[in-house]
Amino acid sequence: MGQGNTSASYTVVPNGSVTTPKGFKAAGLHCGLKKTTRHDLGAIVCDVPAAAAGVYTTNAFQAAPIAVTRESIGAGGKLRAVIVNSGNANACTGKQGEADAYEMRSAFASAVGIPAEQVAVASTGVIGELLKMDRVRGGIAELPARLGDSYQAADDFCQAILTTDLVKKEVCVSVTVDGRTVHIAGASKGSGMIHPNMATMLGFVTTDAAIGSETLHKLLRQVTDLTFNMITVDGDTSTNDMLVAMASGLAGNEELTEAHADLAAFAEGLRYVCEVLAKAIARDGEGATKLVEVQVRGAENDLSAQAIAKTVIGSSLVKSAVFGADANWGRIIAAVGRAGVPVNPETVDIALGDIVTLAQSRPVAFDEDAALEYLKGDTVVIHVDLHMGEGAATAWGCDLTYDYVRINAAYRT
Amino acid sequence: MGQGNTSASYTVVPNGSVTTPKGFKAAGLHCGLKKTTRHDLGAIVCDVPAAAAGVYTTNAFQAAPIAVTRESIGAGGKLRAVIVNSGNANACTGKQGEADAYEMRSAFASAVGIPAEQVAVASTGVIGELLKMDRVRGGIAELPARLGDSYQAADDFCQAILTTDLVKKEVCVSVTVDGRTVHIAGASKGSGMIHPNMATMLGFVTTDAAIGSETLHKLLRQVTDLTFNMITVDGDTSTNDMLVAMASGLAGNEELTEAHADLAAFAEGLRYVCEVLAKAIARDGEGATKLVEVQVRGAENDLSAQAIAKTVIGSSLVKSAVFGADANWGRIIAAVGRAGVPVNPETVDIALGDIVTLAQSRPVAFDEDAALEYLKGDTVVIHVDLHMGEGAATAWGCDLTYDYVRINAAYRT
Repeated sequence: MGQGNTSASYTVVPNGSVTTPKGFKAAGLHCGLKKTTRHDLGAIVCDVPAAAAGVYTTNAFQAAPIAVTRESIGAGGKLRAVIVNSGNANACTGKQGEADAYEMRSAFASAVGIPAEQVAVASTGVIGELLKMDRVRGGIAELPARLGDSYQAADDFCQAILTTDLVKKEVCVSVTVDGRTVHIAGASKGSGMIHPNMATMLGFVTTDAAIGSETLHKLLRQVTDLTFNMITVDGDTSTNDMLVAMASGLAGNEELTEAHADLAAFAEGLRYVCEVLAKAIARDGEGATKLVEVQVRGAENDLSAQAIAKTVIGSSLVKSAVFGADANWGRIIAAVGRAGVPVNPETVDIALGDIVTLAQSRPVAFDEDAALEYLKGDTVVIHVDLHMGEGAATAWGCDLTYDYVRINAAYRT
Repeated sequence: MGQGNTSASYTVVPNGSVTTPKGFKAAGLHCGLKKTTRHDLGAIVCDVPAAAAGVYTTNAFQAAPIAVTRESIGAGGKLRAVIVNSGNANACTGKQGEADAYEMRSAFASAVGIPAEQVAVASTGVIGELLKMDRVRGGIAELPARLGDSYQAADDFCQAILTTDLVKKEVCVSVTVDGRTVHIAGASKGSGMIHPNMATMLGFVTTDAAIGSETLHKLLRQVTDLTFNMITVDGDTSTNDMLVAMASGLAGNEELTEAHADLAAFAEGLRYVCEVLAKAIARDGEGATKLVEVQVRGAENDLSAQAIAKTVIGSSLVKSAVFGADANWGRIIAAVGRAGVPVNPETVDIALGDIVTLAQSRPVAFDEDAALEYLKGDTVVIHVDLHMGEGAATAWGCDLTYDYVRINAAYRT
């Protein structure tokens, strides 16, 4: 994954994966939590204690694994491993759910011979049902033998974290730090219940850079606000969202700090990894037929631009129109107008790709056939220019389709 | 419309309409703005200058008729008439759109021989296209001869304001004020682009009560917050939303003021009229197969309860699950948790009708067949009790269906 983009800061690594950075192994298998034979249990293990950081859902109801992972990372800022299951979110499962999350942690720690407090736990799937722990235990017993740094091992992990996703999501870049090659890789899942603030999203970033956990946490939060928090599929935010980053330090660079000359390059590589994963989630939104990108500029400030971009990308009417390849810019301006931030009603431009439909808030005659062709493509970019200031933001989402309704009308059955 | 409900304060008037209150006539006809032969131009006229109040969209882009109506009501708090077209919103239409809205006002005023500044103008339909004024002029010329106080005349008006609505929406109650019978009636439209803050909604309330425009405005705002602003179909808020109330005073009561002993009864009748119209809009949401009602109680305060009720009713995942008759309460609690107001994650009860699915935040075993039967009904009530305080609120919406997508994927074509 990754479009072969390369900037001065980073280079995309073809077939790179979470095991490309030095020190990381991965595995995935089917233990029986999903009804199909798809993988549903996976792990990433680091050869050394990795500096670690996490970003979590803001939902008031946080699943049991969130608390366990917070505790692990909070204990010393280091992780040796993450253990992840799909098919069951272990959310709203009470004391038993907490006990099960702790047992996942301790059982996997024992299985690979590392301290339990250096293991993160993540779960995704249906809310409110207890984990079938006999199956989880069986899977955990099998995982260590499968751990490897091959592309296949990483692929097994990527598959194991998916739920309604149609495709796996992974990317890897290299960045030069102190003249050494540093890798940054990521894997994620998410398809429904996706919205700013991370939704049913799980994300895992590995890097062999040497970087302290506090610096890593700060970068991770900044980058999340520009990437994972700018995607929406349906406006829902889940109880289980989690993004965990681990840095092995095995690339041998001087530790990246605020003062390090190459921190900006590392940050840019991390942003690219997270943007690719976030866009992949949006494109793979439940029922989606295309990726929609909303670029807002000319807003009073970046926060205003973000609010507008998120409102447009989240509009069911805009999403339905894009699905129908209908150049209905009236719905776009209606969404801009209800974003709750200042706009000048007389100075708005709207374009679909290169096709200008509104200039200075007045309709522009455009080629409907060209618009139809453009909207039928697999990526649609909506441009909004407010002509008020320098604020800019980009948000990603997808169209609203019959399949979204079909998938969500009977998820449990 | 109205379910025959009657409280101590008001009595539903069978077959009541906007022409039931004394002094009001209505009409509607097809002038050619809609592609079908459905009515698309209508008017309500009062025999005397009626005390008037309006509540408008909060969208930053406000359609031309909004400004004209604000100006009319602002001029002296009196209206003799409203002229309404459907099929074209006259929004984002620039100077020509403004001129057209003013021309609608002056042309209709001339046609019925009343001052232009006592005429309100409302439009609903597609955004960004100029009104075909030749057709509007032709229709306005025909309207006066059709004005009447019959049920048929009111029906013509109700039909003329619809767009994607499947059914007309009207209700009338009587209230006793000073021992006299006062009528309060209403008609509304709205189906898509519906959300708190009034959306593509138009609403018209007539009453023969004697009440000042300031008191009427205050009541109208209070009632709107509990009714029209608590419905959502798709989270979108339009550029044209407008609710206008006119009071002829011909019932002969002492003017209703804050000090009047019967003001509470009048307010209760007004609330009922607006609630019936709001629920009718939600039930008739684009593609909807059922009405969904979310009742929240036990919140810290009413505002918190409103935020939670609106978040649950607006969740695409909840709406899809209701369409699929899937008792997926996990999506309900996930929506409660992201409403942005304080909740105690350990004390939440959720029920679908009488079927308790979550108690004190823990899943309760329930009869799936009974839940399926309940969710297949034409009205679904979701109860959420936070057990934190006395705050309560009710919101209304509908399910998310294949037809919603179909309707909105190709509205313009």
